[in-house]
Amino acid sequence: MKIAIDAMGGDHAPKEIVEGVFQAVEDFKDVEFLLYGDEVKMAPYLKQHERVQVIHCSEVIEGTDEPVRAVRRKKDASMVRMAQAVADGEADACVSAGNTGALMAAGLFIVHRIDGIDRPALATTLPTLDGAGFDMLDLGANADAKPENILQYAIMGSIYAKQVRGIEKPTVGLLNIGTEDKKGNDLTKQAFKLLKEQNDINFIGNVEARELLNHAADVVVTDGFTGNMVLKTIEGVAGNIFAMLKEEFLSSTKTKVAAMMMKNNLKNLKTKMDYSEYGGAPLFGLKAPVIKAHGSSKAQAIYSAIRQTHIMVEHRVCQTIDQTISKENA
Amino acid sequence: MKIAIDAMGGDHAPKEIVEGVFQAVEDFKDVEFLLYGDEVKMAPYLKQHERVQVIHCSEVIEGTDEPVRAVRRKKDASMVRMAQAVADGEADACVSAGNTGALMAAGLFIVHRIDGIDRPALATTLPTLDGAGFDMLDLGANADAKPENILQYAIMGSIYAKQVRGIEKPTVGLLNIGTEDKKGNDLTKQAFKLLKEQNDINFIGNVEARELLNHAADVVVTDGFTGNMVLKTIEGVAGNIFAMLKEEFLSSTKTKVAAMMMKNNLKNLKTKMDYSEYGGAPLFGLKAPVIKAHGSSKAQAIYSAIRQTHIMVEHRVCQTIDQTISKENA
Repeated sequence: MKIAIDAMGGDHAPKEIVEGVFQAVEDFKDVEFLLYGDEVKMAPYLKQHERVQVIHCSEVIEGTDEPVRAVRRKKDASMVRMAQAVADGEADACVSAGNTGALMAAGLFIVHRIDGIDRPALATTLPTLDGAGFDMLDLGANADAKPENILQYAIMGSIYAKQVRGIEKPTVGLLNIGTEDKKGNDLTKQAFKLLKEQNDINFIGNVEARELLNHAADVVVTDGFTGNMVLKTIEGVAGNIFAMLKEEFLSSTKTKVAAMMMKNNLKNLKTKMDYSEYGGAPLFGLKAPVIKAHGSSKAQAIYSAIRQTHIMVEHRVCQTIDQTISKENA
Repeated sequence: MKIAIDAMGGDHAPKEIVEGVFQAVEDFKDVEFLLYGDEVKMAPYLKQHERVQVIHCSEVIEGTDEPVRAVRRKKDASMVRMAQAVADGEADACVSAGNTGALMAAGLFIVHRIDGIDRPALATTLPTLDGAGFDMLDLGANADAKPENILQYAIMGSIYAKQVRGIEKPTVGLLNIGTEDKKGNDLTKQAFKLLKEQNDINFIGNVEARELLNHAADVVVTDGFTGNMVLKTIEGVAGNIFAMLKEEFLSSTKTKVAAMMMKNNLKNLKTKMDYSEYGGAPLFGLKAPVIKAHGSSKAQAIYSAIRQTHIMVEHRVCQTIDQTISKENA
């Protein structure tokens, strides 16, 4: 198996990306890594390894670049070359912590959609209090969605939850403003009907945002605007509460002592809310796995994203999506 | 000034509602209260007071009632009678902690919309880390919105922030999935243009969900589906983190001691995140103030909702909305 890596994407590139790859190379003996990036900048972190090939690229897509234009014009960018390797069959999958919009454009224009998939979707596994986690999509690959898109999100999310996360009959919930069948806006009301009629998925009805972290369903589907909004709200509220908590813990000598006594417990809590452990955000609906690692990824998060990519390739997730969608459309 | 109260709405009715009213009657000497509800059930909590009038009602709208039907059929329900008092000019405003959908229906069909307002909106003041708070609307009065509705939400929210919260030129942000001007779905892209062209409001552009608690704007506007989703996500995540925190604090003798040492600080934190202090959720766009108090309201929250209603009547918020909308449409 060959995995292509964009060594230049993300806040801590190339150092943490390269280190994550060298961590993974020891554990995944069946993987060859193609590392795309600036040789000079990568040099301090590189080691000789028979399963790591370094490919020099003269360009980098920045976080501030306009996605589509950057992918079209920067032909020698690490992200573009990485995606091209997948398109050319030189790699089975690819991972980048760079510009999300550009990675989606690279997926769409270089790796290409599976036939019959109208819109790819960005997904991620988020933490639940019971430790099981749930997959949510779309997180913003498409700001506007049709009911049919949401149905495809449900099919793709179910395949992923089954084949990568090992859940036999993953429950699918439609994110909505009430749990009753007839709740919602025009989009969710129509999507509800389509999901209800679909036999290949285990649809359990509407789920509310309030219950997401209580494991309301294994797979939660929504349009990209709402998904992105809810994801950022979760991140924002959790971040703010932890910041306030820290402030309170540092406010006096007494509270500092209490903080020391609670050290392991607070670490516990942060780990529970930390979804970098679950890997990156896969783009579903493309011909091969394209994984977006978090922009702030350190080596451990890159390692997790690689582990996830490895499972996606091994369990033939994209091929299963392709076959299922062909069957649906037949 | 006369304020009509639905004594039978909410999880702790009628006890906490009645107690909240008797707390308020001492502080707001210019207010007469009309208390609608079941005389027998209210009796244990009632006192004689020259500015509190009790009106017996034989029916109650339950949380499980279908809103529109309940309002149409239960003519002697406390919520319906309360709204009718406002419509008949017997009261200047009303407050209920009951069924949200029914209260919206009562507002729409009994109190009636202001001419020129296409859709009323549900708003509330949410906490920010700096303690100032921000107003968000629509929280779900309408699941689907047009760009023109969002513009009206911005106008109404600005008037409220100015007249009730005393902010001279309240900043208005459009809730969106990115801060750049061209980000968003079809709805937010169109709403952005309308907001940008409107001179009567202090529009500062798109704001992200992640920054809401950091006081991204004084007034944040969005469609009711998204607003409801974000509100419930905030509630869910905050509730879950506090529950996990409690679990960690109770996990051993050592952590229990730490919890005791942190007692005041944890209380601080909870108060910061508690928005019942800011009052209830007003329905904007109706001819008189209709305030939804939280379903779990205790006496203190009812008191806060009454204080807020008092300011809304005193500062003629509905009249200002009426005049501003007439001017816009002229």
